[in-house]
Amino acid sequence: MAGIRVELGSNSYSVQVGTDALDRAGECLRAAGLTPRRIAIVTDSNVNALYGQRACQALANAGSVAKIIEVAPGESSKSLAALEQVYDRLVDAELDRSDAVVALGGGVVGDLAGFAAATYLRGVSLVQIPTTVLAQVDSSLGGKTGVNHRAAKNLIGAFYQPRLVIADVTVLTTLREREFREGLAEVIKYGAIMDAGLIDWLSTEMPAILARDHARLTEMVERSLRHKATVVSNDERESGLRKILNFGHTIGHALETSAGYGTYLHGEAVAIGMVAAAQISCRYSGLSELDRSRLERLIEAAALPARMPPGWRNDPFLRALFLDKKRTGGEIEFVLLENLGRTVIRRLKLEDILTAIA
Amino acid sequence: MAGIRVELGSNSYSVQVGTDALDRAGECLRAAGLTPRRIAIVTDSNVNALYGQRACQALANAGSVAKIIEVAPGESSKSLAALEQVYDRLVDAELDRSDAVVALGGGVVGDLAGFAAATYLRGVSLVQIPTTVLAQVDSSLGGKTGVNHRAAKNLIGAFYQPRLVIADVTVLTTLREREFREGLAEVIKYGAIMDAGLIDWLSTEMPAILARDHARLTEMVERSLRHKATVVSNDERESGLRKILNFGHTIGHALETSAGYGTYLHGEAVAIGMVAAAQISCRYSGLSELDRSRLERLIEAAALPARMPPGWRNDPFLRALFLDKKRTGGEIEFVLLENLGRTVIRRLKLEDILTAIA
Repeated sequence: MAGIRVELGSNSYSVQVGTDALDRAGECLRAAGLTPRRIAIVTDSNVNALYGQRACQALANAGSVAKIIEVAPGESSKSLAALEQVYDRLVDAELDRSDAVVALGGGVVGDLAGFAAATYLRGVSLVQIPTTVLAQVDSSLGGKTGVNHRAAKNLIGAFYQPRLVIADVTVLTTLREREFREGLAEVIKYGAIMDAGLIDWLSTEMPAILARDHARLTEMVERSLRHKATVVSNDERESGLRKILNFGHTIGHALETSAGYGTYLHGEAVAIGMVAAAQISCRYSGLSELDRSRLERLIEAAALPARMPPGWRNDPFLRALFLDKKRTGGEIEFVLLENLGRTVIRRLKLEDILTAIA
Repeated sequence: MAGIRVELGSNSYSVQVGTDALDRAGECLRAAGLTPRRIAIVTDSNVNALYGQRACQALANAGSVAKIIEVAPGESSKSLAALEQVYDRLVDAELDRSDAVVALGGGVVGDLAGFAAATYLRGVSLVQIPTTVLAQVDSSLGGKTGVNHRAAKNLIGAFYQPRLVIADVTVLTTLREREFREGLAEVIKYGAIMDAGLIDWLSTEMPAILARDHARLTEMVERSLRHKATVVSNDERESGLRKILNFGHTIGHALETSAGYGTYLHGEAVAIGMVAAAQISCRYSGLSELDRSRLERLIEAAALPARMPPGWRNDPFLRALFLDKKRTGGEIEFVLLENLGRTVIRRLKLEDILTAIA
């Protein structure tokens, strides 16, 4: 197992990546200085059926009493109602301040369990064991936790860093194809914004990655996490550098919202958003046509959508784009590329964006 | 107005104490570097009727659009249901990340609004304008926020520091007598644990304080806040020094719980708890009988209860005492006094506690 360190002063923590990390979870906790008497494993029913007992066993081996709190799979569990049920179950499990919550699952479980850990008894130790590509390379690391409100996604939440992240790439082999691929969008994003070499490597290794070769998956997750760790270490609360992680997300979010949640998976919308942002970059930040097409080809090699959907110029899309939180004074803050691997932040008018994508 | 600084690195903030602080709230915000476009003032209907419009006006003067979010008075508003309503109202008011929440009220409002501010959009600026003695000298400062769960008080919450605290002592003149007096228990506590001179001063000035003389109230609130600021600055998350603030609270909490919430106000239970803890201190940490009786006489001078209620040795009290979160291995962690102004933390067996109070 390889260890990556997220440096955040007294909130620093390590990330363990490997092919046997799940079964060694108890050992990882001890190595991180965590010796809770009780552990509540929050997971959804899909993940529970596959990995719940193994996680319990691994944690019990290390001397903790582990109990599973199961929630329904899917975005509906990112709600205040589901959160309230998690609180009830934490109380039933008699968790106290010295105990720990483990989030075993994808982004929804990580966000829900993370927020519960952040707010139960004003904060108990949180361990993330992400089981999707998206969660392993992105959402498990960085401390964003929360639930949705009818008015907006992630409206209720907290920045709360985990004490440890355990990424076992072997669990990625049981992911459905579409869910696996959407995670690749965030991997490609790290290449686009900070590591042109990663774009090359992914272009070569994509067939092996899609075949879920463990060695390639390990390298892919590790490289991604190192980039995320660098960004988070420099900007815990998204006040500066961390904005570059929004590359592809401005248009991506607007597509997700306007198409109705569920039409696109998050990573699919981000893939389209990245191709669009690259087009805009060609016009406004000097990205070469060669770099743009390298990015587009890689996204297509990952079997991710790259084109704006027919009728994208409709009202809901424009409204969603304009309502994006990053808007200021009629302009929209955009993360653009100068080259593959180098970003620049620009404010653009809506018309300029539309012209560039058209 | 006097300014007190709470030093917490990047979470540092100032506390403004004075007799015209409420009307100068907008000015205080600007001086603290806060220039929100929109402000949501969370308050209860009692406080709103007295001070809501003045607060709105003061904040509008400084260029912010202020809206009032009114909740029901009393502990019932420290609930997930009330919190959800506050979120809805914050959405309706279109608060964004650069805006602010003001908590205008006592401990309940401060805890509820504070937790809403901590978790709305992963945290917006929070300003505390406490309107009770308890909130002014204690709960508004230190960052403890949260709501109750059926299983326990404050079970759901977060440490979230305000950006500014504004304590206007003139609002204390409209408090009901009993509510005013309960706050004095926490003032006396600062004297007992860290400032024997404050005990002397309070003993002399108690008649003027009970008559709510503005100059004495200002000095009292300021001295208390300086002590709280010192403790919080040294221990943001209650891992060490901050424990001394629990003086009188172990027995106090057990009394509150076993008598049924509402029988005693928090400060009343703490007053009884301090006298009991002083008795225990005489036996286990060398407190002199003279110091013990000075403390007891001051509590009586503040017209606060000092004696354990008849039948206190009943089962619910013992169970509550034993279930206190600070228990470990059959013993209970107790904050005791060596002298007035100097504490020591000891672990005691339940029998020893009971014998000492008897």
